[in-house]
Amino acid sequence: MPVRKVINDPVHGFITVNDNLIWSIINHPYFQRLRRIKQMAMAHLVYPGAVHTRFAHSLGAYHLMCNALDELKQKGASINSEEEQAAKIAILLHDIGHGPFSHALEKTLVNIHHEEISLLLMNQLNIHFEGQLTLAIKIFTGDTEKTFLHQLVSSQLDVDRLDYLARDSFYSGVSEGVIGYDRIIKMLCIHNNELAVEEKGIHSIEKFIIARRLMYWQVYLHKAVVSSEQLLLNVLKRAKALSQLGRKLFASDALNLFLQKNLNLGDFESNLEYLEAFTQIDDDDIMCAIKTWAKFDDKILSDLSNRILNRDLFKTVVMDEESLSLYTEKENELMEKLNLTNDEISYYLITNTISNQAYDSNDEEINIMFKDGSIKEIGSMMHSLLSANVNTAVKKYYLCFPKF
Amino acid sequence: MPVRKVINDPVHGFITVNDNLIWSIINHPYFQRLRRIKQMAMAHLVYPGAVHTRFAHSLGAYHLMCNALDELKQKGASINSEEEQAAKIAILLHDIGHGPFSHALEKTLVNIHHEEISLLLMNQLNIHFEGQLTLAIKIFTGDTEKTFLHQLVSSQLDVDRLDYLARDSFYSGVSEGVIGYDRIIKMLCIHNNELAVEEKGIHSIEKFIIARRLMYWQVYLHKAVVSSEQLLLNVLKRAKALSQLGRKLFASDALNLFLQKNLNLGDFESNLEYLEAFTQIDDDDIMCAIKTWAKFDDKILSDLSNRILNRDLFKTVVMDEESLSLYTEKENELMEKLNLTNDEISYYLITNTISNQAYDSNDEEINIMFKDGSIKEIGSMMHSLLSANVNTAVKKYYLCFPKF
Amino acid sequence: MPVRKVINDPVHGFITVNDNLIWSIINHPYFQRLRRIKQMAMAHLVYPGAVHTRFAHSLGAYHLMCNALDELKQKGASINSEEEQAAKIAILLHDIGHGPFSHALEKTLVNIHHEEISLLLMNQLNIHFEGQLTLAIKIFTGDTEKTFLHQLVSSQLDVDRLDYLARDSFYSGVSEGVIGYDRIIKMLCIHNNELAVEEKGIHSIEKFIIARRLMYWQVYLHKAVVSSEQLLLNVLKRAKALSQLGRKLFASDALNLFLQKNLNLGDFESNLEYLEAFTQIDDDDIMCAIKTWAKFDDKILSDLSNRILNRDLFKTVVMDEESLSLYTEKENELMEKLNLTNDEISYYLITNTISNQAYDSNDEEINIMFKDGSIKEIGSMMHSLLSANVNTAVKKYYLCFPKF
Amino acid sequence: MPVRKVINDPVHGFITVNDNLIWSIINHPYFQRLRRIKQMAMAHLVYPGAVHTRFAHSLGAYHLMCNALDELKQKGASINSEEEQAAKIAILLHDIGHGPFSHALEKTLVNIHHEEISLLLMNQLNIHFEGQLTLAIKIFTGDTEKTFLHQLVSSQLDVDRLDYLARDSFYSGVSEGVIGYDRIIKMLCIHNNELAVEEKGIHSIEKFIIARRLMYWQVYLHKAVVSSEQLLLNVLKRAKALSQLGRKLFASDALNLFLQKNLNLGDFESNLEYLEAFTQIDDDDIMCAIKTWAKFDDKILSDLSNRILNRDLFKTVVMDEESLSLYTEKENELMEKLNLTNDEISYYLITNTISNQAYDSNDEEINIMFKDGSIKEIGSMMHSLLSANVNTAVKKYYLCFPKF
Repeated sequence: MPVRKVINDPVHGFITVNDNLIWSIINHPYFQRLRRIKQMAMAHLVYPGAVHTRFAHSLGAYHLMCNALDELKQKGASINSEEEQAAKIAILLHDIGHGPFSHALEKTLVNIHHEEISLLLMNQLNIHFEGQLTLAIKIFTGDTEKTFLHQLVSSQLDVDRLDYLARDSFYSGVSEGVIGYDRIIKMLCIHNNELAVEEKGIHSIEKFIIARRLMYWQVYLHKAVVSSEQLLLNVLKRAKALSQLGRKLFASDALNLFLQKNLNLGDFESNLEYLEAFTQIDDDDIMCAIKTWAKFDDKILSDLSNRILNRDLFKTVVMDEESLSLYTEKENELMEKLNLTNDEISYYLITNTISNQAYDSNDEEINIMFKDGSIKEIGSMMHSLLSANVNTAVKKYYLCFPKF
Repeated sequence: MPVRKVINDPVHGFITVNDNLIWSIINHPYFQRLRRIKQMAMAHLVYPGAVHTRFAHSLGAYHLMCNALDELKQKGASINSEEEQAAKIAILLHDIGHGPFSHALEKTLVNIHHEEISLLLMNQLNIHFEGQLTLAIKIFTGDTEKTFLHQLVSSQLDVDRLDYLARDSFYSGVSEGVIGYDRIIKMLCIHNNELAVEEKGIHSIEKFIIARRLMYWQVYLHKAVVSSEQLLLNVLKRAKALSQLGRKLFASDALNLFLQKNLNLGDFESNLEYLEAFTQIDDDDIMCAIKTWAKFDDKILSDLSNRILNRDLFKTVVMDEESLSLYTEKENELMEKLNLTNDEISYYLITNTISNQAYDSNDEEINIMFKDGSIKEIGSMMHSLLSANVNTAVKKYYLCFPKF
Repeated sequence: MPVRKVINDPVHGFITVNDNLIWSIINHPYFQRLRRIKQMAMAHLVYPGAVHTRFAHSLGAYHLMCNALDELKQKGASINSEEEQAAKIAILLHDIGHGPFSHALEKTLVNIHHEEISLLLMNQLNIHFEGQLTLAIKIFTGDTEKTFLHQLVSSQLDVDRLDYLARDSFYSGVSEGVIGYDRIIKMLCIHNNELAVEEKGIHSIEKFIIARRLMYWQVYLHKAVVSSEQLLLNVLKRAKALSQLGRKLFASDALNLFLQKNLNLGDFESNLEYLEAFTQIDDDDIMCAIKTWAKFDDKILSDLSNRILNRDLFKTVVMDEESLSLYTEKENELMEKLNLTNDEISYYLITNTISNQAYDSNDEEINIMFKDGSIKEIGSMMHSLLSANVNTAVKKYYLCFPKF
Repeated sequence: MPVRKVINDPVHGFITVNDNLIWSIINHPYFQRLRRIKQMAMAHLVYPGAVHTRFAHSLGAYHLMCNALDELKQKGASINSEEEQAAKIAILLHDIGHGPFSHALEKTLVNIHHEEISLLLMNQLNIHFEGQLTLAIKIFTGDTEKTFLHQLVSSQLDVDRLDYLARDSFYSGVSEGVIGYDRIIKMLCIHNNELAVEEKGIHSIEKFIIARRLMYWQVYLHKAVVSSEQLLLNVLKRAKALSQLGRKLFASDALNLFLQKNLNLGDFESNLEYLEAFTQIDDDDIMCAIKTWAKFDDKILSDLSNRILNRDLFKTVVMDEESLSLYTEKENELMEKLNLTNDEISYYLITNTISNQAYDSNDEEINIMFKDGSIKEIGSMMHSLLSANVNTAVKKYYLCFPKF
């Protein structure tokens, strides 16, 4: 008899799981680990409510996948029960390869994109579940004729985005990010095996893209959020540098491994031990270590660690153009005040770019289907919001440095 | 002792009135009459929840005015207590001149813009309240140096829009229209006596303008909404035509007056009786009459009336370009099937335009104030959403005719 | 091909209709008429947001019925497609016999309970739809072995209550009335063909009953709500008295009929014309007439009418015990000040009772089903909230009279 | 110039801090540490959304305190600006002494009630802030004539409860726990320096108490929540036992201290180092350690740790009466299957009680103030919900043991 589990979710109400394989996957340690990884990394330093986890997001995206598949089936799409199960598994596992504080981690501890790790972990799970995930993995990688199943997992209109925008808005309290995901799902349809949107959904799509744009600039790329992620990155960089110099830092075994070694995808593929170690680290390892490092006798590591713990963030200046003169000015100021060497200065003076493209008509375009069956890319429509500035990457420069 | 009245409002929670003059205005029959005028006219035929009244909207806009004034005062704006009271009264009364089904009415029963009637009624109230509304009227008409007070009542960023978008979304269930009015109000500031928005409010303003655009195309200009308003307009046109031919139609005295006479602003100004009659009609007169007219022995009047009562709406075709050939085709079809004369055909075949400009940089532009005190029009900013298609009027053509 | 209509509802999101018969019933003039009858009668004089209609409530209850039936079927209940359609029709039509301002109307204009009229109208619709409503009518009247279908339509746990509590809270802004209808529906189950609630739903049921109790005392029986309904009742009583004395009052034909005749159920059954006239009156007839009556030359009728229009309500005193002395005191005061005759005084001095029983274990008790399959009435459980004061009718006395 | 900080909060919208001392307290490491302590401990294993922190709750309670003080001042209460600041500080710090997974911690790692630690920490902060917290501490401990200020911080109607019920409902998605805190705050008044509630707030209070009761039984005392907290407690108990036997466990320094020593209040008072160490531990230390302990070579510690990490919880049976026979039965079963000694069995077989009293009329009773100024305890009123079962402690027995 199939399970029937109902999970309370503050965003979607009740999430139902009624498939035994899916329930087993949820209960696997790889998936349970997502309970200990915050979806929005350090953004909670700015939006204190935003402490929700990748576990909840993955369940939420799964729930929207269920709704989307129901809707498409009601509209006559041919989706058999294997495909349905596989699409649900694909979305459930789409973030399985995320490490703690994802971007900071990918740039320091491991040097591998989280999607690659997701795929490695799915393959491991597929072995564990005796091949039952094969179709799910094909949908995840796009190796299917029913392109729309892959697009529901990964495209500019995937249920991943629908859930994370709704969820991140909900938890951060940034109500402007709220999207009408119900209506968008009601408007989905299929054309030539690809996902499309019914004509009357145009404005909902526009609003969804604008909401995404707003969430980027207001939340994900908020100055203090960027600043705290840079701080974390530098803490990990410093810890790794010290570790590799032979200093003994407090860390869980798994974290220690990644501090001492510089691993790449090849290493992960050839040695399963590394992948297993990867599944052992989560936000708690990092934060617990940082708390200890705050008392370590390296001035830089302890200072940066304390700043994260007590939210003493760097100031961030965002500019439309790069400014070398400001960089030099700050460099001199820092050297003078903090007495840092050239090597050390990079921990205190960070320059980088942030960019966001609300919609990209060159990448998995969003298509509108008209009542007569014809199709048009949304940005190419008359009066479309999305034909102009929205369909352009916006890039900004920033500089982070301590306030004095 | 000042009153302290708390009114439950599903949109804003609790609305507090703590000023005796304002409480008296609310209790005046002119204002109580707004209880009987639906904010969204016939839109409830499409969005059944949208039956809220101009009374609730006016109170809601008053509430947001209270919040906006508090915010501006906290930021150091000089607003004395007379100005505060006056601004609240001005917004409370900004819609006082609306008749039932406003636009239908303005084009048939009276030939006067509702803002002109609002002003006439405010002047009457000012006599009744012995001159205490003088400053409020100045703020309403823009006759004040503190331009921002007028802008809070009427501009592209007024509290009228903030309330009606929030309220219309709430009641229609079109959640995509939800706006972050709280945040927008928090971001308001003053520059040279004009309203401006703090830099970090840019994205909220963009989202607000997109939400407004969405509400226009999805709700206010929804095909079936347009169709039902045209139907109502034609019912009233027909009733007026028959009345003026001497046919005796069931109608309240006040409605009857407007059916028989063609009045203009001059008539209203010279004869207070007309203004008084105007304050006697509301949605109930129209709907009660239509129900009786549905049995009247004029084929056109009874048919159109029945269509409104039982939601048997005309089909609406919306086009980017006007189509004379479609018009002619439908004209012939209708003549043949309904056996109508040339005069009568206009009741069954309606062509007109709908248009909306989400933001107009030439009209009361929205300005952003930067931390350094500088000011920039929002559409002129780099990467602005509002520089392109949004800042253009979109105009569409439509044709309404019976389905067969 | 079956229809597929999606209706926006601010309470439930999207309501789907995918059955042609049900769509035809919704489009029948009898059902469309519910658009013009406010669910909460005069309560909007106190809660200005509460202007929603019986049309929206009926659709909402239909939506919850769909959800409840889905849930029960998933749990293995045997419900065939005819029964499913019939249960949906039964709930859709459960309020079809409501007149405008229901209770006021039932006590003055007609002397028949609205459920009796509902049944008469369902029978008429059944003729129109050629017998397709027969099973729905049986479910409505309880003439079915599957008692739970009737209980979903009418019992202490019916979807009617679930919708109206949710909806009335939503529109009045009384957030304390919000109920977890989603969870309650998830907890429904069937035992011996009767509705029951799973064990883990106990607290949700308790909270639902307390929410209902709160809505009664805070909203439905709010002093000013009671007062405005009494005012309306007396307006109609006076208008009827004057009509029957031969005075010619402004009224639509149908309203006029009910002012002049005293009809009972037998009259309705024997003369379909009366039933047809009943379907012609709605809130608009009453309010439009009252506006005209406010200028009628009967002092009592015009005064009471003006009071309703301009919200000049009677004061209401609520007491645990009846107070004859207060009655006499007020009677004398009124006679002296208003110069009324004995007959007339009853229009200005109203005494009556209000009562509410949050839960009644003697009437269609709510049963809890335990995991072992055993059943217990909710009030009989240990520590139950519902065993004591909640399971008792609370009755209060009130007196309404003009403020001076 | 005073600060003006606005913090987004998903529950209350915007929280404003405009007092420099309060802003400094928020930025103190003691307060920032609350970011790393989950409000609902292990309840997120059942309600995955419920990962919000004591930091957010403390800010939320502070926000409601601001609203309550504003309301009381508007009603004429005499509260000077020092008292206002102090009351806000008192509520901000009311939970400052909470450790990670509070109850588990209090029963294992330290043997001190969190309120005692709160007071110790407030005293330390008072030294740091040079005596500016003296009045706040008096309000916290009840050492003030203005009893209502203390009652706002700690009583059956304090803003602590108002925030945590609202917040815990919001984050867990248990919408039935939603309370009308806005209305309750609007209804607060003062009588003889004590907090009371206006007559028309009775039903809101009843609903609030029922909501609290529901949250207890449905969330806080949910079987799986209880089970996971017992599991955590036993992990810590085992780790402490092993540590004190000289086994070397992975742990941060501060955690290690509490594993090795058995400290009481006197120790904390006489040695500030212990208090300082206490402020160094949070959820991350515990969870990071548990992850390492899951591989430790003590069978019990590793098994229990793995169970927490992967949500493999004990089964919980709840009973109205204690059952020795069930205990013995399970004891035998466990001994046989797990081969445990008598000492070890207590880690796998837990018996204890849960209890909740929704309202206690003997403890800081809630009083209703009538319009005539008279006062009545809410449970003593006619028809009161709170006179009967609600005003009684409900106590249940439970037994936790592994599922096989």
